[in-house]
Amino acid sequence: VPSGLRYDTVTFLSDYGTADEFVGVVHSVIRSITPELTVLDLTHEISPHDVRAGSLVLARSAQYLCPGIVLAVVDPGVGTDRRPVAVEVGEGASVLVGPDNGLLAPAVGMVGGATRAVVLDRPEHHLPSPGDTFAGRDLFAPVVAALAQGLDLHDVGTPIDPAALQPAMVPLSREEDGNVVAQILWIDRFGNAQLNVGPEEVEQLGERVRLRFGGTMPTTRSAAVARTFADVGSGQVGLVVDSYGLLAVAMDRRSAATELGLSEDDPVTIEPIADDEPEATRSVTSSVSIGTRPPEAQP
Amino acid sequence: VPSGLRYDTVTFLSDYGTADEFVGVVHSVIRSITPELTVLDLTHEISPHDVRAGSLVLARSAQYLCPGIVLAVVDPGVGTDRRPVAVEVGEGASVLVGPDNGLLAPAVGMVGGATRAVVLDRPEHHLPSPGDTFAGRDLFAPVVAALAQGLDLHDVGTPIDPAALQPAMVPLSREEDGNVVAQILWIDRFGNAQLNVGPEEVEQLGERVRLRFGGTMPTTRSAAVARTFADVGSGQVGLVVDSYGLLAVAMDRRSAATELGLSEDDPVTIEPIADDEPEATRSVTSSVSIGTRPPEAQP
Amino acid sequence: VPSGLRYDTVTFLSDYGTADEFVGVVHSVIRSITPELTVLDLTHEISPHDVRAGSLVLARSAQYLCPGIVLAVVDPGVGTDRRPVAVEVGEGASVLVGPDNGLLAPAVGMVGGATRAVVLDRPEHHLPSPGDTFAGRDLFAPVVAALAQGLDLHDVGTPIDPAALQPAMVPLSREEDGNVVAQILWIDRFGNAQLNVGPEEVEQLGERVRLRFGGTMPTTRSAAVARTFADVGSGQVGLVVDSYGLLAVAMDRRSAATELGLSEDDPVTIEPIADDEPEATRSVTSSVSIGTRPPEAQP
Repeated sequence: VPSGLRYDTVTFLSDYGTADEFVGVVHSVIRSITPELTVLDLTHEISPHDVRAGSLVLARSAQYLCPGIVLAVVDPGVGTDRRPVAVEVGEGASVLVGPDNGLLAPAVGMVGGATRAVVLDRPEHHLPSPGDTFAGRDLFAPVVAALAQGLDLHDVGTPIDPAALQPAMVPLSREEDGNVVAQILWIDRFGNAQLNVGPEEVEQLGERVRLRFGGTMPTTRSAAVARTFADVGSGQVGLVVDSYGLLAVAMDRRSAATELGLSEDDPVTIEPIADDEPEATRSVTSSVSIGTRPPEAQP
Repeated sequence: VPSGLRYDTVTFLSDYGTADEFVGVVHSVIRSITPELTVLDLTHEISPHDVRAGSLVLARSAQYLCPGIVLAVVDPGVGTDRRPVAVEVGEGASVLVGPDNGLLAPAVGMVGGATRAVVLDRPEHHLPSPGDTFAGRDLFAPVVAALAQGLDLHDVGTPIDPAALQPAMVPLSREEDGNVVAQILWIDRFGNAQLNVGPEEVEQLGERVRLRFGGTMPTTRSAAVARTFADVGSGQVGLVVDSYGLLAVAMDRRSAATELGLSEDDPVTIEPIADDEPEATRSVTSSVSIGTRPPEAQP
Repeated sequence: VPSGLRYDTVTFLSDYGTADEFVGVVHSVIRSITPELTVLDLTHEISPHDVRAGSLVLARSAQYLCPGIVLAVVDPGVGTDRRPVAVEVGEGASVLVGPDNGLLAPAVGMVGGATRAVVLDRPEHHLPSPGDTFAGRDLFAPVVAALAQGLDLHDVGTPIDPAALQPAMVPLSREEDGNVVAQILWIDRFGNAQLNVGPEEVEQLGERVRLRFGGTMPTTRSAAVARTFADVGSGQVGLVVDSYGLLAVAMDRRSAATELGLSEDDPVTIEPIADDEPEATRSVTSSVSIGTRPPEAQP
């Protein structure tokens, strides 16, 4: 780390969008205080107030983030008694800063849990502010800059029990009558719908499965697990093992979400297809078995 | 400032959007000439040609920006006789660079006025260009890079009287028949509608006021001044003191702009509510008095 | 170049969008490996899978980009047998990294052609990955970081013949019956429709021409070549010499694409207007001759 900083990278996520100046002003405040600090934007297009979506982005990204500070602001309760916190993980390897509303919890869990936590209640480390609605600028940005410079967690806040932090609300899949009942965690730009299910959970259902979608457009489709979008087959629906190791409902070069009317949070049931079902309902996807690809096939 | 630069930070605002390569190319041209210079993006999603919206973003941000160069390009008259200018403020603490069309004026005013100004009429400091439509790349970027390296304003342009710069057109609120006639300056991502009115201007109207909206969907609502969005009360309309110290028409976790059909520039009249009006028209908002919050309530 | 890096700048283009965390994670992986490397975003809003649009952005930008590494990912065939490649240009002045699907070819051509190329088939330089769908994070980012640190092309891949790279598919204009048959290459944020035609190609058609649009809304308009948008004249259609030296169908402060129903790829025929045509069909645009503007008119 250059320049004698304690942390040299801030990874910044919010629901601020980029049409207003919010993100740029936070960058500017941080740079005004600690010019050597680099701020990377993870995304700022979390839907307004969607704490759950923000927490899932952090959890998916956690293992790929630079060590340093994570600043996350999706904060519908800004200015109220929800607590602004800093959470240390890995004995100080990184610090997550944001509101204590469940946003940080899944990422904290992904990297081994919190070692210390404080409530950011020291106004001498905040900017004087004309209003109480922009904590990113007035409270979180100066605290992040101070932590990067080497202030200890206990310099910027009052210790709290990490176990008392707001827990995450990540839905778990479950087995029911031999089926797997899943939920759509995330629909990405390409229309792939990530489920809260890994490939190992559906192995016992056989090579082909039936997907029962329970959103606004109830329908069923047969699908096979596939390694790439191209393997799904034109016009077919597949369960692609995505870049986080979870199954995503996907189509080749088309948006599965649009074609099937899927939304985040929708339930999806994964069912076995009986051997005696007519062939017509079976998938014509060229299925690919997981785990049997030889290493030399790596692109 | 490292590397012997005169200025080490450029804050960049435009109406270029981010779908095209305009912003990236300006970054690249600046870095090609002056690699040590850091460029922060304020926003590039000003509506095409909306000089007024761009000028308001700059004015709101001015006091939070890193000292250095501000590059602002919202330039419907690109290539015509509107003048490209550089405006020095604070005896050289910062320089604002952009077209002389009113875009820079409110920010210049916010930081104490111009100390010097030049028209950027020295083609030897510009890129040779195949057309006259991309002044950000061909004229402003290389001038910004040259100023950062230490060239004086007078090296890159011909002095003009700062008083002759295009003035801003910021609408002022006014009193009329005991009411305050305001205008919507800005609607942010969350649907809050900032007015050109501070809390002190409505104090004499009483704790509750009537808002009369004059846009495409004329309607009235009662409202109270509130400190946070949560204080507005579910389903109610409030006047929240926003992060710039102005009143914003807001709702808790909902878009006031969508619910009330508000647009930027719409007039809003703030009226007292008579004591003998039936209670039903009174606000049920839990009102919070401004200025009486003890310091220890700071979140 | 500081810090002993072989390359200190990466220019990054993709179809990842900015709503998901894809772009931020690629930044983070690169910074985790090579912290001194600066990553500039060119744009990430290429339409999903639109290789042609991405290749045109790179070609337009090529001459303005910082020397260094270009990372370009528009990759509908991710994980299949399309080859991930690194292409050296200018005897090592820059390296372009991305899928071999035609995306890189026009930019490579613009800067003088490839001097060497490799297929990125050395998994020891990639991240271990739970799936095969995010090559930007797992394959391209670590390779870019390694090349910046000084690894040779041959360290990260197996040499291939640069002549065997997937060629570009850039449509050429043609003459037909005395007309110029063009195509819309690009519609920018302001609604200007860039044609694959330079001003010299229409000179022999006379000062005024007829544009015949062949998209979803067939129509004709007369137009003159203009130097600036303002020169087009209010409500008129012009052929503005754009910032890349090509003709763009444009209107002053309005979106020509919206007004005329234009889309990328649409054909446009440019026809001479006969001298004996009634004046009514002639352009009333204040025409400006190309090449006759004195140098002192430079803004």
